[in-house]
Amino acid sequence: MVMIAIRDVCPRDGLQSEAPVDPARRARLALALAHAGVREVEAASFVSPRAVPSMAGGGGVFEALPRDGDVDWWALVPNARGAELAIEAGVTHVTVTISASEGYSRKNVGRTTTEAIASLAEIADAVGDDAHLDVVVSCAFGSPFGDVADPSATCLIAERTCDVMPTARLTLADTTGTATPRRIAEVIAAVPEVSTDDLGLHLHDTRGTALANALAAIELGVRRFDTAAGGLGGSPFAPGAGGNLATEDLVMTLHDLGHETGVDLDAVLTVSRGLPDLVGHDVPSRVHAAGGLPPFGAGA
Amino acid sequence: MVMIAIRDVCPRDGLQSEAPVDPARRARLALALAHAGVREVEAASFVSPRAVPSMAGGGGVFEALPRDGDVDWWALVPNARGAELAIEAGVTHVTVTISASEGYSRKNVGRTTTEAIASLAEIADAVGDDAHLDVVVSCAFGSPFGDVADPSATCLIAERTCDVMPTARLTLADTTGTATPRRIAEVIAAVPEVSTDDLGLHLHDTRGTALANALAAIELGVRRFDTAAGGLGGSPFAPGAGGNLATEDLVMTLHDLGHETGVDLDAVLTVSRGLPDLVGHDVPSRVHAAGGLPPFGAGA
Repeated sequence: MVMIAIRDVCPRDGLQSEAPVDPARRARLALALAHAGVREVEAASFVSPRAVPSMAGGGGVFEALPRDGDVDWWALVPNARGAELAIEAGVTHVTVTISASEGYSRKNVGRTTTEAIASLAEIADAVGDDAHLDVVVSCAFGSPFGDVADPSATCLIAERTCDVMPTARLTLADTTGTATPRRIAEVIAAVPEVSTDDLGLHLHDTRGTALANALAAIELGVRRFDTAAGGLGGSPFAPGAGGNLATEDLVMTLHDLGHETGVDLDAVLTVSRGLPDLVGHDVPSRVHAAGGLPPFGAGA
Repeated sequence: MVMIAIRDVCPRDGLQSEAPVDPARRARLALALAHAGVREVEAASFVSPRAVPSMAGGGGVFEALPRDGDVDWWALVPNARGAELAIEAGVTHVTVTISASEGYSRKNVGRTTTEAIASLAEIADAVGDDAHLDVVVSCAFGSPFGDVADPSATCLIAERTCDVMPTARLTLADTTGTATPRRIAEVIAAVPEVSTDDLGLHLHDTRGTALANALAAIELGVRRFDTAAGGLGGSPFAPGAGGNLATEDLVMTLHDLGHETGVDLDAVLTVSRGLPDLVGHDVPSRVHAAGGLPPFGAGA
């Protein structure tokens, strides 16, 4: 029985490929997740509104979020300009994406991985002491462009992050759902810079493996996961990305296994059941559709 | 690295809740799965065609299947009358369902679990030495009728099976996808009559847990799984059953973990891609939609 930290990225990753939802509704979604017991929510990103129209108005999202609670509101930034905008908007928790895939890096942030790594110092300068940092390595377990066949690029990013942003935490993203329990173990073993219990995983369920990957990672000592209510999500720049691991799917299973998340499953399901109205279509989570578990056995 | 036996139940469980597919096409599906390397296929059931119209014509399915190959063709029977019909049709591998849930037993076979257990002796008589037997315990991990809250009914069925059918093998079915890795471990530990490496699991993916459950069961020594190409399936008598664990989803992950199945993933995906045409709608498998894994790391 361990404590697992959940960061719900539904208002950001979950909505970034959907038709635009106005900032006030995105903020209400973030608040509803916080009321369900989620202690970290990725609420917006500060990216070009031309590149990702549905993420326009990140400042408006943050204006509507309280600053004095016990919830960490994260915002994603792709570069130093985004970091400046986030800090101006009062963001105190900044995620930075760096891609292990050259092809994805060019599509997603318009620069090579080497250039993106070089920009870490600028981003660190832009953030200064004003915000916590989380460096998210995209495509850490494979790439839709076929250019990530081992953990070497992820290791390089982890090393540079430790050099340039020594206080940042590291999250490994399975951007297009190519991870398996073996691949999770192999990448974690190859990244010696970061202790496993300070490492996060951001899993997509493209091939139905996300829950199995999360459970395997917990066995290896990982204690922190990105999920999205409803299983919404996926990068607009990663062909066939697939949705995030659904918050309700992970929470249901973790609670049955006796782990703690601080999240109220019924409350997350209530949030999740409002999502089809928000995005105009069904959502991928199977627990969303089927409901929680009946009691069974000693854990009941 | 271990050998995992896959029984594809798509022609039976996969199609039983669909609009009827004629026996010749069901036989072709079974043969295509065999050509993909599946060594056990559940090809039909011998049930009342009034109760399950899509399973009418089981004899016709078996007429079209070769008897001299190295594939075990299974047929499911609900009672002694079904067993007689199966034996008359030349079936050599008979699955018998007994439900741990009273409510499901009444809906599914029109009798109480106690009556169903009592009928095991009649079924054993009807089969004689003409066929191998596999007793499938439905709702072993919970019931849609709320009447299975622990492993006791499953243990009783396992005990009686060992008494009456000492050569039969046992398969535990998660009929409505309420199993978790914890519940799998708890039920297996409670069934001491059967050694784990001779126990099968029949998993449904109602809540997205089937793959994680299979991997947890392999860690506990289980070596045999029922799956269905495309993730089709679900009992017409179990509300909200959800599809079976998809053959391609399990095979993809097992191969990446270094396990052997004898199944050709690409060939199963080809079979799976013909299923929407057969059933008239999309299928649940995510690997069906996303395709297999690109190579990565030491296992590549």
